[in-house]
Amino acid sequence: MSWNTLADHPRLLLFVPSLLLAWDDAALTSEESDALGQLIGADGPLTSAERRALEALADPASPPMMADVLRWRTALQRSEAVHFRDLGRSLALANGASGEDLAALLPLADALDELLGTLSSEAVRRFRNEHATRTAAQNTHASFSVAALTRELHGDQADLIERVLRVLDRPAFQVPPAVDLHAQREQVLRWCHELAAEGLGSMAYPREFGGVADMDGYFTVMETISLFDHSLAIKFGVQFGLWGMSVQALGSNYHHQRYLRDIGTLAAPGCFAMTETGHGSNVQGLRTTAMYLHDTREFEIHTPDADAQKEYIGNAAMHGRYATVFAKLIVNDVDHGINAFIVPLRDAKGDVLPGITIGDCGPKHGLNGVDNGTIRFDRVRIPKAEMLDAFAQVDDQGRFQSTIENPDRRFFTMLGTLVGGRIAVPRSALSAAKSGLAIAIRYGDQRRQFGPNGVAEIPILNYRAHQRRLIPALATTYALHFALRSMTTRFLAHDRSDETEGRRIEAQAAGLKAVATWHVSQTLQTCRECCGGKGYLSENRIEGLRRDVDIHTTFEGDNTVLLQLVGKSRLQRFRQVFGIGGPMALLRLALDKAGTGITEKNPLAVRNIDADHLADPEFHRNALRYREHQLLESAARRLQRLVKDGMDGFHAINVAQRHLIAMAEAYIDRIILDACHAKLAAVNDPELRRVLDKLIGLHALHTLERHAGWYLENGYMEPVKTKAIRRQVDQWCWELRQEAVPLVHAFGIPDRLLGAAVLG
Amino acid sequence: MSWNTLADHPRLLLFVPSLLLAWDDAALTSEESDALGQLIGADGPLTSAERRALEALADPASPPMMADVLRWRTALQRSEAVHFRDLGRSLALANGASGEDLAALLPLADALDELLGTLSSEAVRRFRNEHATRTAAQNTHASFSVAALTRELHGDQADLIERVLRVLDRPAFQVPPAVDLHAQREQVLRWCHELAAEGLGSMAYPREFGGVADMDGYFTVMETISLFDHSLAIKFGVQFGLWGMSVQALGSNYHHQRYLRDIGTLAAPGCFAMTETGHGSNVQGLRTTAMYLHDTREFEIHTPDADAQKEYIGNAAMHGRYATVFAKLIVNDVDHGINAFIVPLRDAKGDVLPGITIGDCGPKHGLNGVDNGTIRFDRVRIPKAEMLDAFAQVDDQGRFQSTIENPDRRFFTMLGTLVGGRIAVPRSALSAAKSGLAIAIRYGDQRRQFGPNGVAEIPILNYRAHQRRLIPALATTYALHFALRSMTTRFLAHDRSDETEGRRIEAQAAGLKAVATWHVSQTLQTCRECCGGKGYLSENRIEGLRRDVDIHTTFEGDNTVLLQLVGKSRLQRFRQVFGIGGPMALLRLALDKAGTGITEKNPLAVRNIDADHLADPEFHRNALRYREHQLLESAARRLQRLVKDGMDGFHAINVAQRHLIAMAEAYIDRIILDACHAKLAAVNDPELRRVLDKLIGLHALHTLERHAGWYLENGYMEPVKTKAIRRQVDQWCWELRQEAVPLVHAFGIPDRLLGAAVLG
Repeated sequence: MSWNTLADHPRLLLFVPSLLLAWDDAALTSEESDALGQLIGADGPLTSAERRALEALADPASPPMMADVLRWRTALQRSEAVHFRDLGRSLALANGASGEDLAALLPLADALDELLGTLSSEAVRRFRNEHATRTAAQNTHASFSVAALTRELHGDQADLIERVLRVLDRPAFQVPPAVDLHAQREQVLRWCHELAAEGLGSMAYPREFGGVADMDGYFTVMETISLFDHSLAIKFGVQFGLWGMSVQALGSNYHHQRYLRDIGTLAAPGCFAMTETGHGSNVQGLRTTAMYLHDTREFEIHTPDADAQKEYIGNAAMHGRYATVFAKLIVNDVDHGINAFIVPLRDAKGDVLPGITIGDCGPKHGLNGVDNGTIRFDRVRIPKAEMLDAFAQVDDQGRFQSTIENPDRRFFTMLGTLVGGRIAVPRSALSAAKSGLAIAIRYGDQRRQFGPNGVAEIPILNYRAHQRRLIPALATTYALHFALRSMTTRFLAHDRSDETEGRRIEAQAAGLKAVATWHVSQTLQTCRECCGGKGYLSENRIEGLRRDVDIHTTFEGDNTVLLQLVGKSRLQRFRQVFGIGGPMALLRLALDKAGTGITEKNPLAVRNIDADHLADPEFHRNALRYREHQLLESAARRLQRLVKDGMDGFHAINVAQRHLIAMAEAYIDRIILDACHAKLAAVNDPELRRVLDKLIGLHALHTLERHAGWYLENGYMEPVKTKAIRRQVDQWCWELRQEAVPLVHAFGIPDRLLGAAVLG
Repeated sequence: MSWNTLADHPRLLLFVPSLLLAWDDAALTSEESDALGQLIGADGPLTSAERRALEALADPASPPMMADVLRWRTALQRSEAVHFRDLGRSLALANGASGEDLAALLPLADALDELLGTLSSEAVRRFRNEHATRTAAQNTHASFSVAALTRELHGDQADLIERVLRVLDRPAFQVPPAVDLHAQREQVLRWCHELAAEGLGSMAYPREFGGVADMDGYFTVMETISLFDHSLAIKFGVQFGLWGMSVQALGSNYHHQRYLRDIGTLAAPGCFAMTETGHGSNVQGLRTTAMYLHDTREFEIHTPDADAQKEYIGNAAMHGRYATVFAKLIVNDVDHGINAFIVPLRDAKGDVLPGITIGDCGPKHGLNGVDNGTIRFDRVRIPKAEMLDAFAQVDDQGRFQSTIENPDRRFFTMLGTLVGGRIAVPRSALSAAKSGLAIAIRYGDQRRQFGPNGVAEIPILNYRAHQRRLIPALATTYALHFALRSMTTRFLAHDRSDETEGRRIEAQAAGLKAVATWHVSQTLQTCRECCGGKGYLSENRIEGLRRDVDIHTTFEGDNTVLLQLVGKSRLQRFRQVFGIGGPMALLRLALDKAGTGITEKNPLAVRNIDADHLADPEFHRNALRYREHQLLESAARRLQRLVKDGMDGFHAINVAQRHLIAMAEAYIDRIILDACHAKLAAVNDPELRRVLDKLIGLHALHTLERHAGWYLENGYMEPVKTKAIRRQVDQWCWELRQEAVPLVHAFGIPDRLLGAAVLG
């Protein structure tokens, strides 16, 4: 049997379009074939010869010959019919069937369509290869000036960024990347010298020591060189930030005079030796000792055992001549907690000094241009003057002194002066996300794969799933850019004597660092996957970025630990665990909440899905505040209950740990959005304002979408609303797809720095 | 003023414990100090001298001297009192206050406690450093036999696994890892030869060609060598799987005779040259041509332009002597779609043959022991016999022939024979997750950080947040192990003539591959972060695993693309887009659903939070089936509506893309759980059954938790239930923490293969 037999049964041509379609996508199942058999059974309108012919057309074991398909397809393509029934009808009539014949078959034709699911006008279009589809029509189109947006992003740092980019364009930075570990480290050191010679290392130091007292500039330089090479950024940060600023912040005039200028020129390369093998997150538990010896006016720095060796110390394995060493100060057998000391590691020739043992951390996941090492001290003596004594001193009589009596408080005050690292790290990491997104989005715009039948393939960025992966990540990257800039400004402006603001900044910086570095890490992973095999090749850079900034989730404290700290600090007003949620504290919370989200939890708002409402920044802000406050209050109540029920505080905090972290995240989400809204209010260009409103709106709605379960659980939204939010995120992704390439161009990253072969 | 003045005011000792506690965690705020000032104001029971003394104790600018704190602390520690009030009271009485004095101060003491939030018996314990806390008490304890669980996991492959592990213990595999690219590739080639010499490469081939016709064994070998080195696993898979099995499955007797034995011994190293620069996901769009030349009975293999070059081809850059090349067959100017051909690339000396141009993909994110390359063909001629002709042939008269007429269907039938790769890839990747979890969980059990005041630090695996990161990942790793084993069994057992089952296996394998490889990638990232800096060092292996198996999310098709295919295949019963959701199809769905989840959506079930119910596998299964069916039905309805509203089918599918992917994930989630339940039913050892029930229960509940928003949106659960699920996940993580180390030991990975320095 074959389709040729149809010539003998012109009436059956009525069914041809449906059957062809059924065969077109896939083989018919025997189940369907059986159902068709029953449908056309003996007591129907067909003759037995017609039945056999029709059954043959649906026999799963014998699909139509390609030649037949092509022949019928051609006939269909030439037809004028819009609906399939008309098509079959006109074919049948043209081949000799009568109108009466066909009328008798119409109920059967209906049943057949129902069985095969073939009914609409779409199919005719498909067979005609006329696939004009909105999906194919999407492309890149900027509604705003890219240069204006770059100026908005760079703000008052534009000149410095320009200057750093010019430096990075010099021949010294246009060399092929070194391959082996040793060569990479030497290359990065040379680059560091180049930046130091340019005066970019000492920017934050006072003028008298070769700087320009521009801490803002320090952050900008770090962020900008992160567009070029992260090993360089980290080596730079270790030398001029961690080492230099520990001397600046923890030392006094003697240390500044003696070291700062040489640190800024890189004549005195150094380390920041805090972390030990046994203590990373819990730095208060460090076990290196600094014993004061009054007879010689010296400190004896000592590593009591392997667990107390310094580990992962940047600049230690190869280049560091000095280190700021954090150690327990012991005076007359009394432990005065962690203090910092400058300890020489190597002589001028680079040979390791007696009593010092250096290990090499060897190859790492990334940042292989940084020479991380371990350091052990075997009763190494340093002069008394080398204690960094801004917060505590040993006086001439050999007595310990400090204006901050409580050792815990002294320790945290000391750490507080180093909070800049928690701003530099996420800003540096965010540069990697910008680079990764620039590569992946531009690739998505040029890479074509699949498409409507018989038409050219379309850019993969036109696919909704692809947009969903990249465009919310782009929106959040913008949001974090604004939030980190805002955090920087607050950090630089705050009055050091205002301890409350100081502690708030520390907590927010820690939380932002956690949220931002996780975002970067996930975004680069997404970018890698969105570029498929191209993303896996080193020549396209994304994988290197991914590896380099992976450790940023651990730098300055593991993200999970940091978020817990943020959570605890938010509960601080509740004081001791056992007393959490005293009436006064709860009262204060309730007051905070009045006038914000709480008013919205009414039957109308929870179901409000008006487009204007969903796009309203006020709605986004209220929703984030509501989550922040609810989680804070419920965490406090929960801890109170656990402890009242007899649980010890340490265990209670552990039981509520997930809650605490969720609370901290909610807090940081709100901080980020507030910073964005403040920024938007200051954008005057209406075109920029329009695209940024949508971009930040997308960031906000995507945040709400990720927490849809929470909002549903807490009755702040009804299902109709969470669904509407999801649709709105889809819609904004679709609309922003055409702005996506201009939006990554606005980061202002030169193609040479992107360094992705696939972008040509 | 100092705390010493208290000696003059013995009554005030009543307040000391509360004030000391308030100072203990943090500095008092000036806000609190002011509130205290108001509290003790002029008309209270205190004398003005007492007021001043008390105010001084709460002055934020002058915290207590450490010596004072220590002195009072000692007193507190020695006291017998349980409640704080008693403590203050006894201190005051002992220092000369009268009972009458103190009675007058009690209301003030209450108010002070309320203000500072200091009220319970917990605090006394804290000051006594008696922190017996359940958090510290958690440790490792196996309730089952590790060896018995390993036997359960290995099943009938135990002997082969043992044999492969013995081979991997030979000196050839005990060498230091090569560093540079070239040395890595040569090292991996040597290892491959070692495995081939052992007969492990040819296992799947028929006996007459040196094999033992054991495809199951092939998967096992690949999975087991993945515990050692992923470059080796992939090189092995390219040679013996992709190259060898393409010859076996797509070729006929001539090819088997000519090549298979040499492939199995690695005498004939080869490639699988499918992917092109321009076409990865859309392999049907490949543009390499194979033109048949009847006069010389040859094919001319040609690369028309740079975009059509073969790319990422394993074994191409260095070692491959042959390649299975996928190209469009053209006979007499007619394009017969993609077919496969054996093309020689190099001669016996390893020199590249004329007409062939090889490129090197260079360094990659991982798998640097595999020599991926590009291949271009410049009108390379091969004899007619070298077409792999199982599914299509050119006959002696130069005419194209195939038993499968439709070129699409022929292409997908051809691909269907290669579906083994979609099983081998996730099984290989899962080995990396097992290794990573073994390292991170054992590290978490030994690494101690923080702890209750004055007590030893505790293992970080005791922290709930840490458990939350690792233990659900461990549970899902077990679930995927069972699911992939089950998939393997079905793949090996299925009757090749049953096309419906064949297509179902292809779809499920594609979906499982996507879900499993994403799980592995995320799990290794989590493991890396859970080991902090240790996880970043190459010597601890996790980072290398992370990099090597990153590409598995792209191998065999990008995961997102694969899930869409799964989604579309699930809709296949709805046939053409325009006809989706015909009444019969919906009827079928409704029938499927009867007797499963749907019956549960009643006011009692949606709020049922009984522990037994939450732990009931029936509940888990019903909930997953409900999600699967609802998403399928709603996706079908949605597409139908979009098309009825006039949207073209291509665009409609794009609009619903997220929906399609969600539907595919729901389907795969259910498949995985079904496989686990089938496995559990066959476990007889009651101890194993107990721990595996809990582990798979955790996997299931964690899956439900991740989709809590969906269940709330669809009214399948009420908030009280999603919250209860979250608590139950917490609880099971806590309980399984003590089994976690034994559970990773049960994977049976020798410490040498784990290769993590930190495990000692």
